Order: sequence, then structure tokens, then C-alpha cells
Amino acid sequence: MNTTGKVIRCRAATHWKPGAPLAIEEIEVAPPKAKEVRIKIMATGLCGTEMKMLANPNSHNNYPIILGHEGAGIVESVGEGVSTVKTGDKVITLFLPQCGECASCLNPGGNFCVQFKQSKTGLMSDGTSRFTCKGKPVYHFGNTSTFSEYTVIKEISVTKIDAVAPLEKVCLISCGFSTGYGAAITTAKVTPGSSCAVFGLGGVGLSVIMGCKAAGAARIIGVDVNKDKFEKAKEVGATECINPQDFEKPIQEVLFDMTGAGVEFCFEAIGNPATVAAALASCHESHGVCVIVGLLAAGTQLNISGWLFFSGRSLKGSVFGGWKSRENVSKLVSDYMAKKFNLDPLITHTLNLDKINEAVELMKTGKCIRCVLLL
Amino acid sequence: MNTTGKVIRCRAATHWKPGAPLAIEEIEVAPPKAKEVRIKIMATGLCGTEMKMLANPNSHNNYPIILGHEGAGIVESVGEGVSTVKTGDKVITLFLPQCGECASCLNPGGNFCVQFKQSKTGLMSDGTSRFTCKGKPVYHFGNTSTFSEYTVIKEISVTKIDAVAPLEKVCLISCGFSTGYGAAITTAKVTPGSSCAVFGLGGVGLSVIMGCKAAGAARIIGVDVNKDKFEKAKEVGATECINPQDFEKPIQEVLFDMTGAGVEFCFEAIGNPATVAAALASCHESHGVCVIVGLLAAGTQLNISGWLFFSGRSLKGSVFGGWKSRENVSKLVSDYMAKKFNLDPLITHTLNLDKINEAVELMKTGKCIRCVLLL
Repeated sequence: MNTTGKVIRCRAATHWKPGAPLAIEEIEVAPPKAKEVRIKIMATGLCGTEMKMLANPNSHNNYPIILGHEGAGIVESVGEGVSTVKTGDKVITLFLPQCGECASCLNPGGNFCVQFKQSKTGLMSDGTSRFTCKGKPVYHFGNTSTFSEYTVIKEISVTKIDAVAPLEKVCLISCGFSTGYGAAITTAKVTPGSSCAVFGLGGVGLSVIMGCKAAGAARIIGVDVNKDKFEKAKEVGATECINPQDFEKPIQEVLFDMTGAGVEFCFEAIGNPATVAAALASCHESHGVCVIVGLLAAGTQLNISGWLFFSGRSLKGSVFGGWKSRENVSKLVSDYMAKKFNLDPLITHTLNLDKINEAVELMKTGKCIRCVLLL
Repeated sequence: MNTTGKVIRCRAATHWKPGAPLAIEEIEVAPPKAKEVRIKIMATGLCGTEMKMLANPNSHNNYPIILGHEGAGIVESVGEGVSTVKTGDKVITLFLPQCGECASCLNPGGNFCVQFKQSKTGLMSDGTSRFTCKGKPVYHFGNTSTFSEYTVIKEISVTKIDAVAPLEKVCLISCGFSTGYGAAITTAKVTPGSSCAVFGLGGVGLSVIMGCKAAGAARIIGVDVNKDKFEKAKEVGATECINPQDFEKPIQEVLFDMTGAGVEFCFEAIGNPATVAAALASCHESHGVCVIVGLLAAGTQLNISGWLFFSGRSLKGSVFGGWKSRENVSKLVSDYMAKKFNLDPLITHTLNLDKINEAVELMKTGKCIRCVLLL
């Protein structure tokens, strides 16, 4: 049945208020307007960003809302003026758009498209939502809202991928994998033969390790207070792993002892200001680069010794691994298809959408790295 | 008279204790030992680093000491095993050595040679001083001690320059000029057509402006609370200058208003933690780079909103403008001789060594940008 131009009724995990569990509801999804795309979501990761939102009773989102941003699916229909994807195309959703026109998109060193900010409204460009549930409008999230069987996204937040790519795997390229992998390759520009340390061995930290390995790093030191994570870290490329709690010295001194003169590339994949300071202090004093990959809570202040910068260290932010989203995500999918990296070690659980609250519990325990939901 | 191998008696500005004025004394300078060079200093700048030390009653230097590090002179004699300079060569002194063997020297992105730390002892590599005064050993400073008619420096802290270079000008390439100019060219890698802001319009800030201009920046905004500095800043390349005290808004908001989306390259050339935070916040959120050029006092903590890094900003340290000292200083002198930049706007006063305390007073008033002392 051709659904083009019609409202689609389908299921979505709806979040009604801060602190509530997600509720699988029947919703209505309006057709895409100009420069918008309606997508049948086939798979979506459950990312740490959603976990932080679900755990935060003071979330600044508008409610009700459909969360989810790490999605992959198939284009159902397109609105007027859409030229880069068409019905039937396999696509990945992009919380970070690439409008191609703003100062960030036009600068070779930037990727933080100015259109990202649209997501803060929870609405599409025309100031309305495409979702309703029980007669109420439902807000969009992260320019994407992938916890729904169908979603509507702006064309600049969608990229076409290889028609044979397995969506239940490559959905991770939509956020977590690319964020970590790119932090090493694009933001830090890890060099062959170099030394690296990755603080935090969750899904993003593991992806950083894969990026360091792909870039040819000689030594990749995983750092985490949970030693249960070490086996997986070594599986994806860490050459050794350490637990700061096993030492009396501060971790930066431990890393200086291990490397002689500090680590060349450090990555903070937790989002903790004290760990950011320790990671910077662990860097080589001259040319060490520290990349903040973890999401720091709003209002977090970094308190860092100014002296650390005197000798030349750098502290860099990184969003979505520094990738310009539309032009790089399809390439990353091609690299995956060419077996340049493996996503299997990151995907520990795959569940159907109606088990989403089970998935949330699995993520909370820390035993699940990434849970992929099938729709 | 050939002085090779003999002790030389000469004059030096000696600092006997914290808070005291400098005293012109007759001192003895021993011959250079292996891998050392004895230099007849002809000219030396009086740099902000010395000003901070003279103003600090709690200076951690050893006393008595001969300060001064921005020097140019002629090799008087060389110790055993010295191969890169010989008697009669014109040279520039380098507070930052380039040993060519340490991890920093071997890394293309670093310049903080591990041998820099020798200067902390105030002694040469063998643990002794080459200076005595009134029978007492006198400590070296900054691997150089240029406030003396003769000094002894390690070969790795000396570089040969063009035989016709005017030493009373190019001595500034020994520190202040290169520190600012390189922060723009080498550390920040300012791009053609870009926007820049320079916080602090002293000698180093003016040199940053010259670097931004040489790199082809389209817009160079000088920022200082002293508007008397604006004319000179414009003379060397600032396209406009602003005084934060003329605005009610924080300076970062003023710069966002002026540029639309933040400045691409910001430089802090003061050494004030609050200004570092403002300079970072003034950067373009996506690809903005902030370079700390000013010397932050030991123990200074930077308190910076973590959110500033989320979208991709970078904060970089820079020492000696990121230049590997020996291989670049001679090239910078050649560039000066080829009129690629002009040092005259930086040199507002030239005095004889015996007027050094007058020079200190001139620097304190802020009317003097750089005072060059002739020996």
C-alpha cells in the first residue's frame, strides 16, 4: 500500500515526562513537508545521551517527546525539493546535520553545523511537529527521533548509504561509533607509531581505541575503574589496560611512569571534569593532544592548571568525531562493508523496540555496551 | 688580544636578591667547557619575563643571578666538541634549546626540548656556574644570561645567523617577537582570509598581529584596556581595536556581535586566566582555536566552561611560538633581512646596559614596548 502523502499510524517509544519509563504507544506520523524525508526506521542504537536524559529528572526537553538518534532505515517518502535521497534508499539518521552552507560546513576544520540548534526546539523548521499521540503533538528529539517505526527528518540530517549494508549494525555509525573513531582519526589525527590513552571503556571509548588502531598507534592504553571492561578493550585494540584504583599515585603520574614522557594522544570518553584534567596532565608536555569526547553536563566547569599549557599541550573538543556528517557517514558505511572495522564487539544486545525499557536497564548495569533495538 | 681559554673580566647587571634593583658589577666569566660557547653579547631585549621576576619578591630563582635571555652577540670562543658555531659568528641566544635528540625535538609537532629544564638549576650541565662576582659564584638564567658583556651558553642554546644582521634589532627574534609571530603562524596556523583577535597589545601581542597579517588574515581585532596601544597595533596590522571597558557586555559577546559567529583564531598575550577563558569563549564554536601566549603565573588555575569544547573549539599552549629554536631562528633572521617583517615598531627605546634600571622603569609604565640594551 502506498503511504506517500498520507498520515502513517505506527508504534513509537514515547517519553511522557522526566523520570517516567518509555511507553510504547500508537502514534501518527504526518507526511514530510518540503526538504523533509519520512523514514521507516529499521534499527536504532540506545546511546548514552538518552541514558543521561532518562536518568535526569530535570531534563530540559519538551514533553511528550520521542527520543532516539542512532538510527538506520529506509526512505518511505520525501517532501518537495528533496534531491539527495528517494523512496527505497537505505539511510542513516544524523543528529548533527550538514547544511553545507554555514560557516562550520564551509570550514575544512569544522563540523558543528549551525542547523544543529534546530533540535533544541523539538520541532521541525516550520515550528510544528510531525508526530501526534492521543491527540497531542509529540516533540522531536535530536533532529531525528528514531525510537519510532516512522520518523520525519530534514534532508540535511539524512545520508544515503550502501543498499546492502546491514542496518542493525551500521546504525551505530549514526553516533557512538563515529564519535569515538573520528575523535582519534579526525580530531586528534593520531599518528602512526604514537602512544594513546583512552579514559573510559564504554562503547565510545572502545570506538576511540578502534580509531587509534586504524591510525597505526603503537601503544593504546585503556583506563577504566571497571576491570571487567579490559578484555573487550584488548579485543578491539588496546595494548594494555589499567585501573586507576590499583595505584596510589595519580593516574597522570602512572602514565608518565609507563611512557617515560607522557602520552601523545589522550581521550576522555566519560564526561567527567576531573578526568578531563587528568587526561590533559597525562599528555606529553610538548606535543600532547587531549580530546574531550565524553559529554560534560551543562554547567560543568573545568578546573585545569594553566601550567599544563605552557609547554605546548592542546585540549580539543570533538563532536561526532569531527566528521562532517553527510559526506562522511556514507563513506564510513563503505569502510565497514570493506571490513576496515568491525562493529560486532560493540553490539552486545539486540532487542525488539517493545523491550526498550529492558534495554535501558541493561545499559544501566554497564554490562551492555550497546543495545540495538529492532523496529 | 686573544681571550680564548682565559677568564674574561667584564660588566654584567647582577641581581643579588628578590626585590633589589639590578647592579652593574664587574664579574669573571670562565672559558666554555665541552659543548659550550662563550659569546660577547652585543644587544639584549628586556622581556616581560624578567619584569615579572623583578616584580616578584618570592621569585624562585637562586641568587645572585644574571638575568636576560633575549640576546644577540658574537662568538668569542667555543669549547671542545662544538661544531655548529665558531669564533666570530654572529649568533642569537635561545632560552629554549633544541637538542635534536629528545621526544619533543624529534616530534614534528613539538618544540619544548627536554633540555630546557637545565635552566631551573641556574647551572651548566656539569653542575657549576661560569660566572663569579666578588668571589661568589653567580647563577645562570634561562640557559642564556644575556645581561652580561660575556656569557657562556650550551651549543644547543645558540644558533648562527646572517653575518650582516643588525644585532640591536634581531635580538628580539630571540624571544618576544618569535613567541608572538610563531603563535599565529606555527601554533595556530592562521589561515588566509580568516578572522583573528589578539588580547593584550604589548610587544608579544603586536608580534602576534604581525604573524596573523603575514598569514593573510582578513580581520585582526586588537583587544586591550589601554587605548593608547591601538595606534601601534593598527600600524603593525590590526584592522580594528576595541577596549572591553567601552562595553557593558562581556567581550566574548562583543566579538560575536562583530563577527557574526565568533572569531576563528584568538590569542591571549597577557597571562591572565580570566582573559584566557574570555578568549576561548570568543572563538567560533565549531573550528575556533584559542592560543595561550601569555605566561600564566605558577599555580594559576584556569576555570573554563566545559560546554565551550562540546562543539569543537581547541585551546592550545604555545612556547616560543611553537618554533623549533635552532632550525627556525636563523630562518626568521633571514626573513627579517628580506624585509618580510619589521621589528622597528616593537623597539621603542635603546639604552646602554648601565641604564638597565631606567629601562625597567620604562617597561613598568607600559609606554615602552621593548627596550633594547646595548652592551
